[in-house]
Amino acid sequence: MRIVVDAMGSDQYPVPDVAGAVLAAREWGDEIILVGDEGRIKAELAKHDTGSLKLEVVHASQVIEMTDKPTEGAKAKPDSSIHVGLGLVQAKQADAYVSAGNTGAILTVATLYTLRRIKGVKRPALTAIFSNPVGPVVAADIGANADCKPEFLVQFGVMAGLYAEQAMGIQRPRVGLLSNGEEEGKGNELVKDTTPLMRAAHGINFIGNVEPKEVLSGATDVVIHDGFTGNIFIKSLEGTASMMGKLIKQEIKAGVFTSVGGLLAKPAFARVYRQVDPFEVGGAPLLGVDGIVIIGHGRSNEIAVKNAVRQARQAVQGDVVQAISAGVGG
Amino acid sequence: MRIVVDAMGSDQYPVPDVAGAVLAAREWGDEIILVGDEGRIKAELAKHDTGSLKLEVVHASQVIEMTDKPTEGAKAKPDSSIHVGLGLVQAKQADAYVSAGNTGAILTVATLYTLRRIKGVKRPALTAIFSNPVGPVVAADIGANADCKPEFLVQFGVMAGLYAEQAMGIQRPRVGLLSNGEEEGKGNELVKDTTPLMRAAHGINFIGNVEPKEVLSGATDVVIHDGFTGNIFIKSLEGTASMMGKLIKQEIKAGVFTSVGGLLAKPAFARVYRQVDPFEVGGAPLLGVDGIVIIGHGRSNEIAVKNAVRQARQAVQGDVVQAISAGVGG
Repeated sequence: MRIVVDAMGSDQYPVPDVAGAVLAAREWGDEIILVGDEGRIKAELAKHDTGSLKLEVVHASQVIEMTDKPTEGAKAKPDSSIHVGLGLVQAKQADAYVSAGNTGAILTVATLYTLRRIKGVKRPALTAIFSNPVGPVVAADIGANADCKPEFLVQFGVMAGLYAEQAMGIQRPRVGLLSNGEEEGKGNELVKDTTPLMRAAHGINFIGNVEPKEVLSGATDVVIHDGFTGNIFIKSLEGTASMMGKLIKQEIKAGVFTSVGGLLAKPAFARVYRQVDPFEVGGAPLLGVDGIVIIGHGRSNEIAVKNAVRQARQAVQGDVVQAISAGVGG
Repeated sequence: MRIVVDAMGSDQYPVPDVAGAVLAAREWGDEIILVGDEGRIKAELAKHDTGSLKLEVVHASQVIEMTDKPTEGAKAKPDSSIHVGLGLVQAKQADAYVSAGNTGAILTVATLYTLRRIKGVKRPALTAIFSNPVGPVVAADIGANADCKPEFLVQFGVMAGLYAEQAMGIQRPRVGLLSNGEEEGKGNELVKDTTPLMRAAHGINFIGNVEPKEVLSGATDVVIHDGFTGNIFIKSLEGTASMMGKLIKQEIKAGVFTSVGGLLAKPAFARVYRQVDPFEVGGAPLLGVDGIVIIGHGRSNEIAVKNAVRQARQAVQGDVVQAISAGVGG
């Protein structure tokens, strides 16, 4: 297996990106292709013990920064690490592309310049994978398509369901449609129009409409929403968890805990926080493009990058692209 | 001041509703009118020391339950505590109505059967009030209108801003429009169409589009969204906080804390949790109807009911209905 890691992806590139690639190469023995500024990557690699690892470097002369506007960056920087990395997957010289870079730019370059959509896919979907106390949940779309038609949402359900099954090993994953209530008559027009189509669709184990609290309590394996609603949903989860984490830290700082109590409490807090920590999962797939693309948080550390490579490996092993192609009937 | 408390509102009615009314009457000395089953209310009142308090009971023979469909319940039970209570406000025999009952039924009875809309108001808005570490935030709409037009959202901004100013004492409250990013080009069609109207509207201190994390970090006093998005947003905050609270309790139960550490940690957790606890605020206004209506959580306890009465008092003192009437130019 050959996996591309975009060395110029994370906010702190190339440090965590290269370190994560080294960790992944060591753990699984796959070939990792680091794409980006060759000099900087090699300088970074020199800090690690890479003797027996299969690590290759492919130079890309440009970087699309987090601050670049996606469509402009994608157009103005054709030799970016994103273009070069996705190009390797397109040319079948690599099996997957992993990046903690500019999500919008990756979406644009994958969809318009390199991989393009799988035949039959109406719209690609950005996803997030997060954990609740019961297990992981795949959420789609979280921002590629702010306004959606019902048939887009049905396809998101097919694609995310297949990803959950093939790449994450969830048998007959339950697919729910996010709504403001499960009862008849709840939902906005989009949800009301989508529900019967979901129910009638082949290849989806549709369990009906779900509220946020149900998604958080493990009632579904996949949650579907338009990109605007999904973005608000995911960012609300992250924002609340982060706010509570900060409040807990303030309480600790305020000396509420004795040193003994504080020492005992900290790992417990850490375990609580890990449940909602996006870095534990590392990354989530861009679904519907003709290749495996895993996108991580800009704030990714080396563990997150390594875990994103794990996601990519599992997606390759599960032959997700082929499954989606068959599933959407393209 | 005369405030109606619906005794048949909360999930555990009439126990917390009556107890909360007693607490409120004792704290502020206002006249509280308890509406509902007279026998049950009097039996409940007998458990409290109500000697010098101004407490009145008005009988209502029917109860719209939480499980009743709002429109059906509103039609089928014309002598419900909701009809009778709101009728007292409509007849100017009371200044405000407070209930922890069926939100949809209260909305229906207020809008269609009793108070009706303030002249010039296009749609009423349900609100939530929650706290971030900096202060309270008023969120509107959270479910009265799943699908909205831009001009509805602008009015929600005017009404919620006036409530924040007049009832909560926030000077020149900042009003933000919830979106999936602040940058140009972000947002769904509704947000993109609404932003310029908000910017041009009189009587709003519009600060632009805000993401969930900004709302949670105190960047705005008022956050505006359609009822579907707002419901997902608020329920995501509640759901995440509740999930983290449960995880923390599990950690404590698992014996991670020594008894000393645990004892020290618990009040700190309690303070963290209180930040996101809807009962602390107690209730939130239904905006745009011709009278003060404060709706609390079904799970309200007596403290929540008392705090909802506080909200009602402040709204009466701030003459919110008059301010909104002037603000929407009706």
